[in-house]
Amino acid sequence: MDRTFRLIISCPDKVGIVAAVSQFVADRDGWMTEANYHADRDTGQFFMHSEILADSLNVSYDEFYTQFAELADRFDMQWRCNDSDVRKKVVLMASHASHCLADILHRWESGELNCDIVAVIANHENLRAMVEWHKIPYHYIDFKGQEKAVANAQVEQQLSTLDPDVIVLARYMQIVPQALCQKYSGKIINIHHSFLPSFIGANPYQKAFDRGVKLVGATCHYVTEQLDEGPILDQDVIRVSHRDSKDDMVRLGKDVERRVLARGLRAHLEDRAMIQGNKTVIFD
Amino acid sequence: MDRTFRLIISCPDKVGIVAAVSQFVADRDGWMTEANYHADRDTGQFFMHSEILADSLNVSYDEFYTQFAELADRFDMQWRCNDSDVRKKVVLMASHASHCLADILHRWESGELNCDIVAVIANHENLRAMVEWHKIPYHYIDFKGQEKAVANAQVEQQLSTLDPDVIVLARYMQIVPQALCQKYSGKIINIHHSFLPSFIGANPYQKAFDRGVKLVGATCHYVTEQLDEGPILDQDVIRVSHRDSKDDMVRLGKDVERRVLARGLRAHLEDRAMIQGNKTVIFD
Amino acid sequence: MDRTFRLIISCPDKVGIVAAVSQFVADRDGWMTEANYHADRDTGQFFMHSEILADSLNVSYDEFYTQFAELADRFDMQWRCNDSDVRKKVVLMASHASHCLADILHRWESGELNCDIVAVIANHENLRAMVEWHKIPYHYIDFKGQEKAVANAQVEQQLSTLDPDVIVLARYMQIVPQALCQKYSGKIINIHHSFLPSFIGANPYQKAFDRGVKLVGATCHYVTEQLDEGPILDQDVIRVSHRDSKDDMVRLGKDVERRVLARGLRAHLEDRAMIQGNKTVIFD
Amino acid sequence: MDRTFRLIISCPDKVGIVAAVSQFVADRDGWMTEANYHADRDTGQFFMHSEILADSLNVSYDEFYTQFAELADRFDMQWRCNDSDVRKKVVLMASHASHCLADILHRWESGELNCDIVAVIANHENLRAMVEWHKIPYHYIDFKGQEKAVANAQVEQQLSTLDPDVIVLARYMQIVPQALCQKYSGKIINIHHSFLPSFIGANPYQKAFDRGVKLVGATCHYVTEQLDEGPILDQDVIRVSHRDSKDDMVRLGKDVERRVLARGLRAHLEDRAMIQGNKTVIFD
Repeated sequence: MDRTFRLIISCPDKVGIVAAVSQFVADRDGWMTEANYHADRDTGQFFMHSEILADSLNVSYDEFYTQFAELADRFDMQWRCNDSDVRKKVVLMASHASHCLADILHRWESGELNCDIVAVIANHENLRAMVEWHKIPYHYIDFKGQEKAVANAQVEQQLSTLDPDVIVLARYMQIVPQALCQKYSGKIINIHHSFLPSFIGANPYQKAFDRGVKLVGATCHYVTEQLDEGPILDQDVIRVSHRDSKDDMVRLGKDVERRVLARGLRAHLEDRAMIQGNKTVIFD
Repeated sequence: MDRTFRLIISCPDKVGIVAAVSQFVADRDGWMTEANYHADRDTGQFFMHSEILADSLNVSYDEFYTQFAELADRFDMQWRCNDSDVRKKVVLMASHASHCLADILHRWESGELNCDIVAVIANHENLRAMVEWHKIPYHYIDFKGQEKAVANAQVEQQLSTLDPDVIVLARYMQIVPQALCQKYSGKIINIHHSFLPSFIGANPYQKAFDRGVKLVGATCHYVTEQLDEGPILDQDVIRVSHRDSKDDMVRLGKDVERRVLARGLRAHLEDRAMIQGNKTVIFD
Repeated sequence: MDRTFRLIISCPDKVGIVAAVSQFVADRDGWMTEANYHADRDTGQFFMHSEILADSLNVSYDEFYTQFAELADRFDMQWRCNDSDVRKKVVLMASHASHCLADILHRWESGELNCDIVAVIANHENLRAMVEWHKIPYHYIDFKGQEKAVANAQVEQQLSTLDPDVIVLARYMQIVPQALCQKYSGKIINIHHSFLPSFIGANPYQKAFDRGVKLVGATCHYVTEQLDEGPILDQDVIRVSHRDSKDDMVRLGKDVERRVLARGLRAHLEDRAMIQGNKTVIFD
Repeated sequence: MDRTFRLIISCPDKVGIVAAVSQFVADRDGWMTEANYHADRDTGQFFMHSEILADSLNVSYDEFYTQFAELADRFDMQWRCNDSDVRKKVVLMASHASHCLADILHRWESGELNCDIVAVIANHENLRAMVEWHKIPYHYIDFKGQEKAVANAQVEQQLSTLDPDVIVLARYMQIVPQALCQKYSGKIINIHHSFLPSFIGANPYQKAFDRGVKLVGATCHYVTEQLDEGPILDQDVIRVSHRDSKDDMVRLGKDVERRVLARGLRAHLEDRAMIQGNKTVIFD
């Protein structure tokens, strides 16, 4: 895969943005291998994602970055420019269930996910062997033998040390404190089951089973202070029938969960996901 | 299609039901072309659906029916035996939107749905021409120029006269009075949009759009006094993205709605759907 | 829906194309509501689709068009610029089966498809009533009582008179002569069933049934001289099982066919489909 | 999960089969938790799958088996009766690619697949560590440094020793000799990519990419002497677009392959799959 600079821009829509950006890139001999735009008619916000071949540019990354900052100011842009060679640091957080964690680890090991998985933080010990076999440090935090606040402080301490670019809640099953949600805003990705209609409260699979739903699904989203209400990265469903027991539905739900989490994580790692209020723009 | 008797049974599960039923059929030379069972482990309820070639039987439908009633009593069965040559009488109820109505009419006309559509009852006039072109009576009920209670009484009167086996709410958009729900219990089929998560109240598509969902769906269900909470016949979804406007989502939602309604209706017409509490058993 | 100019461009990829085009648009105060690019790495070909709000431009369509032609020359572009207010003229061609035709007619009538359906040409009479009810002329061509070459000449004559922008083979079931394929290159859209694996020759559904496939599908594609081998616009599948007879598979296949044809046609009508050799780029 | 006897029957269809079988079971106090029938109208063949609670029976497995054999003779049945407590012995065969193997191992380890994985036979060494970590023996067979016939003889020797009930070709990439296909007829499960249309010969993904397909898929099937032409257990597809490179298509194809293989294997392990000529009956 060729090294690219991924230029991600969001700003108030007006005439001339694309012209200015593309002229800027062309002036530096930059070859755009991909570019996508989206103008939100409701909010008047403009979104842009482009990939520029690093080798084609006649300037260095630092020069490109510094020079673009001026242009960005002019259009009041929120922006970032990520070097595809700089792998994002990912921390996975897990509880007892292995399906999402095992799936991400296998995809990562086989080269599907362009990132460094720097650690797993978990509130159970049962996944340690699998994680350490992948030569990834495993940090167990005790959520049962001590106050949750203490445990959460230990989580926060670990995260501070690890300084991740992305935190994946791979069926973490603990509520992330508001302070952490804010500190890592736009960097925490969660997966949870979803149904039509949704079933609030405990035992959603039991409720879905009792209601005889014909689809079970999963939603991958960014974590905000409203927990499961954050911007959606991806969703999918799988068909079930009266022949499926509640356990079957849980099993099938796991399949959807790991598939959707992998897709959402991939979009984030490739800088294809942009947050707009409580929504996302996914340039696939 | 060969003429069959469709034997639909539900009773408390115990040893010997299948043996008794299948011996009963075999004693009358009946050839079962299809048979399905389901035992609900939670409730201990047994469900059976079988189709018997009418020509293979050495008794008439009436004899079969009368004789089976004795057996049914012994096992405390709720049951019915439908002759595939007796087409169900269907009344379609519509409002302004044409997509579900047009879809059902076309499927019916091209021989896909084995039923008689005896009338359309609608609270708008705009679909009259399409319906009458199909040579189906169109009954307009005015829900704007008179009290809803009056309009509903007219609906009830029409239905009493038509005496339908099935009522399809093809985007009917009016609340069905409780008395009608009870009178036609297990005979009214509705279609409504569905999302993950569900969005309660007015303007669900706007809410789904604002939330940036990646799937929109539809649920086909039996109507109970709890309105949209009845036993689910079928569900499906379609993928959307940030590029889809609210109007696109509505348009794509229509595609799902008519597909899901057609499948649910078909299951009901073929006697493949059984209601169990607030769930369905669908023998497909 | 606001009036837009849809600028569709394909040219050899090099630095500066986007800059030149977007500067051209910005210089004329043009507001791009949407823009998509695709660079094919294998062939070095660049593709661009953008929509510009007509009202935002300080030049007329004719001025825009004439002035852009100069720029297009410089980059060796194949291009077109379509006014969203100029509805494409569509001719539907059908045989005996009604499902695709009825679907397109209903979508068109309910405002989903932005085009003028100027005629239906068919080699059976059975769909005349449905078509004429929609106030669309129905041209019957006799393919049984006369030589195919004669019939095809009549088809060609009709098409010449109608001068369509798009020809939709809605289960037309006749081989389109090479001369017509060439004359309307990139303008004829076909739908046909598809399986995994494909079944060549007569009776594909029987073969698929005999092989026990678990999916049946459909492919919508542009017609080339290689018949069913043209660039693919869209594909989809539906699940089947051993419980489905061959007739069930045909019926389910119809559902997929009309869905896929409608999507493919829509992409074409909205100028979102570009042909590249034997492939398509679909900017959805 | 309660212990059940799974009774699998296939015989020429005639009146009285179900009655005889269900009476036989009822006479022994057997409680059927599930039962499915299928009568193939074309071939006149009858298929039956039922599960009987072991604890409900007043006879032992051996008595049940011996006594049923008499009944089976009477109806000319091909049949088997599997004890759900007797786990099938599975041998996995792999090459270089890890995705299917890792998926099966994880599902097995987390209790999703009710079987004993007794060995992995592979023609590369790269998957050894992963397999041995799961405490499963890994047998490397050299297909490069020696004649294929010699290597295949070693495979056959290993299989003879292992005596598996099921052999899963988890992207094995070697042609299974005809003698092995015959010896393990109905016991070898393969997964391979599938497209619409199919692309014969080398480099199918390249061909699918060049053709611009919008779906890539996978087929799980029993291996017969006609290689990839055996009875289909399951199929599925995933959507791709012009934005997906050939490598993306391969990656997405892997996701489908492992999902479909897992489903097909599960159906086989649960005795839900029956072979009928070149088709399957899957009682899900």
